[in-house]
Amino acid sequence: MKTYALVFQGTAYTSKSPKEVEVLENYLFCVNDDGMIEMVIAPGDPAYRATQNTHEVRRLAEGQYLLPGFIDLHVHAPQWAQAGLALDVPLYEWLHTHTFPLESKFSDLEFAADVYDDLVGTLLANGTTTALYFATVHKEASLLLAEICANKGQRGLVGKVVMDDPEQNPEYYRDADTKTALAETEQFIREVKQLAESVKQGVYPVVTPRFIPSCTDEALQGLGELAARYDVHIQSHCSESDWAHEYVQKRFGKHDAAALHDFGLLGQKSVMAHCNFLDDEDADLFARTGTAIGHCPLSNAYFANGVLPLARWMDKGVEIGLGTDISAGYTPSLFDNARQAVISSRMLEDGVDTALPADRRGVPESRITIDEAFYLATAGGGESLSLPIGRLAEGYAWDVQIIDLTAGGMKLPVFGGGDSKRELFQRIMYLCRPEHIREVWVQGEMVHSRSR
Amino acid sequence: MKTYALVFQGTAYTSKSPKEVEVLENYLFCVNDDGMIEMVIAPGDPAYRATQNTHEVRRLAEGQYLLPGFIDLHVHAPQWAQAGLALDVPLYEWLHTHTFPLESKFSDLEFAADVYDDLVGTLLANGTTTALYFATVHKEASLLLAEICANKGQRGLVGKVVMDDPEQNPEYYRDADTKTALAETEQFIREVKQLAESVKQGVYPVVTPRFIPSCTDEALQGLGELAARYDVHIQSHCSESDWAHEYVQKRFGKHDAAALHDFGLLGQKSVMAHCNFLDDEDADLFARTGTAIGHCPLSNAYFANGVLPLARWMDKGVEIGLGTDISAGYTPSLFDNARQAVISSRMLEDGVDTALPADRRGVPESRITIDEAFYLATAGGGESLSLPIGRLAEGYAWDVQIIDLTAGGMKLPVFGGGDSKRELFQRIMYLCRPEHIREVWVQGEMVHSRSR
Ligand SMILES: [Zn+2]
Ligand SMILES: [Zn+2]
Repeated sequence: MKTYALVFQGTAYTSKSPKEVEVLENYLFCVNDDGMIEMVIAPGDPAYRATQNTHEVRRLAEGQYLLPGFIDLHVHAPQWAQAGLALDVPLYEWLHTHTFPLESKFSDLEFAADVYDDLVGTLLANGTTTALYFATVHKEASLLLAEICANKGQRGLVGKVVMDDPEQNPEYYRDADTKTALAETEQFIREVKQLAESVKQGVYPVVTPRFIPSCTDEALQGLGELAARYDVHIQSHCSESDWAHEYVQKRFGKHDAAALHDFGLLGQKSVMAHCNFLDDEDADLFARTGTAIGHCPLSNAYFANGVLPLARWMDKGVEIGLGTDISAGYTPSLFDNARQAVISSRMLEDGVDTALPADRRGVPESRITIDEAFYLATAGGGESLSLPIGRLAEGYAWDVQIIDLTAGGMKLPVFGGGDSKRELFQRIMYLCRPEHIREVWVQGEMVHSRSR
Repeated sequence: MKTYALVFQGTAYTSKSPKEVEVLENYLFCVNDDGMIEMVIAPGDPAYRATQNTHEVRRLAEGQYLLPGFIDLHVHAPQWAQAGLALDVPLYEWLHTHTFPLESKFSDLEFAADVYDDLVGTLLANGTTTALYFATVHKEASLLLAEICANKGQRGLVGKVVMDDPEQNPEYYRDADTKTALAETEQFIREVKQLAESVKQGVYPVVTPRFIPSCTDEALQGLGELAARYDVHIQSHCSESDWAHEYVQKRFGKHDAAALHDFGLLGQKSVMAHCNFLDDEDADLFARTGTAIGHCPLSNAYFANGVLPLARWMDKGVEIGLGTDISAGYTPSLFDNARQAVISSRMLEDGVDTALPADRRGVPESRITIDEAFYLATAGGGESLSLPIGRLAEGYAWDVQIIDLTAGGMKLPVFGGGDSKRELFQRIMYLCRPEHIREVWVQGEMVHSRSR
């Protein structure tokens, strides 16, 4: 008889496929010393009773449900300090009056510690167990973010941002020069890899050119080579807006996707934020190389000039997950972004301008369901990162949020006969707020809890 | 020297105009026995010290701010029991498999009491101090909703829904016949007016044809006459979707706005939900008659086939406020809807289909700011209802939410030098959750409080 480190008993929701959510009603989840799910046992199974008899089982209370922890594919960690601010100003002003001055302050490690500590704690409290972070150009502060993730128990993938082109970036906030940018990135990769040796849930260095316009060809080439040499994750922005898309077209005579590919920046471990202006050929290239899209629906409404046709790219087999894009997206919650992913997809399908006839207004078959949005926030994120996370299934990490529908003053409006388990899932996805997230676990460790 | 029933000291935000929010920093707000704001005193004013010396002043704590209570212009009260459910099904199924069967259950007063009690409490906890409700066809349960508002201290405007056309409504859920529909509406108006005599904050009966397709001409005519005779509010749905808009065009050879006007259903006290398909002429008619639009941005993403061009109609001087449209909108929060109003307006401006060139994608100058969204949720709602609510100014009701930025585990991300008062306003509008709403007051009475 096997012995497990942890056994949970309760009802869980997990994606069976991009379109289907499975309800595991009153299952046992057996977690080993490494924090991995070793067995998932259905109530009818003979092992069920045996495991109950031989383990101290943590039985979820009435009204509590298990979801996989959320995976946030796009967070600008320093921008947490301006979340909710300056969303009414034009992009240029947003960058040069607000964002770059703020990011430049992260040379100050004390300030960085304040912000990053609060951000990582907040994301955990919002059910985000894994996050893919842009830090700043500063190597030390970027390493500090990785350390804070390590200490707080979040699975953090962290990039020191490269923005080396003196023509494109302000003097007060950019890499000293291309050589320094590459040397510091390499040093950062080594330091995070060393840190990772003692971190149960994993922390990962990420090669992070801010986006093509902010980098020289030499930097992009060098970053592609570093990523290959150290086999690390890669992130950037890709075809986000009209301006960015056209800039790359002018500079290279091709789309971002092809240009990034030329520099060795697409692959299984690559996640590109936004990608709103991909065409079919670009999407095929993403599917072929295993490159994922980090879809940020709230941010896109402010800065992307259009909606990602995600149903279309999901059908093509492109890996897609969700990102908050703090602070172009104001909220730390992937619940908010999952809801907006559905909403934006419906607005793409129906169109927006009621002065046009219905058949010229939208893009048919663009909508996704809330089940698909859940997939994006969980299993889709795990596949995007090529990590065994985002599902409550054997071989996956025990990264979960325990949702408590009776929490605080915010009981869900369930009356009469009560909801079916499928209905409850919809209520959770649409109505849960941070105060319903009772506990959060990463890799078998409790990293957040909230009293009733 | 005047004596006031209540004096509050603190910093408040209130709309000066549709585009401008005013910060009243450390003002005194003096409330009389009727729950009306009688004086608003700036710190420099000689009356400031005098009033402090002669009254027990309730001084807001550090981190607390005053906002006007929100005004929700469109709530289907019975549908609270299905909030968050069935948003992925087509409209016909949503109505006939979910909504109508649910609404029909409100013949059961015990069930109605459970749902309505929970709903009114939840809306208050979300900062909504005034709500314009569709109840159901049942006169008794509709009256019960008005009584629950009265008892819980919410300013409720309640309509017994009329849907009398036997061709268009299911047999199990419609008015018995046109004559009964009108007689019950009249009886309901009298009963609510009688109830109102003893209700400090006011409750109001509302003439409520569900929408043109569900009513006979005779009912629409009779309801217009009742509204005129009793001088009461009127609400319905107007030009919400392609289907509804075309249905009315076929039946009357004109748009909803003109048809509603013919039946005497437009006027100062009229609020029409959605209105996504108004044209310029319709909007002029709204402006001329004082008819308001209840804009429901979240619901519209699911069921309206397009975005209300609200910047355009605001410029024309049409009165507009916000509605949750529970449960076609899933959330009880007008914060959520204010955010989505901004988001949807930007998606209308930029367009959604990235396969189109930028200049053929959207509708220029459609975006609104978060300050304008706040106006819609507060002063715009008050003007829509022609009631002295939605502003923190002399002559307005003391309907407020006290926002506590230090509440619970959800401190806002303010670091370093701290935010200006204008920045804090943006944080509040984008990041507040129900747990930040510490107290809610209606007409000088505290109707909700939440411990830290
Ligand atoms: Zn970004
Ligand atoms: Zn409605």
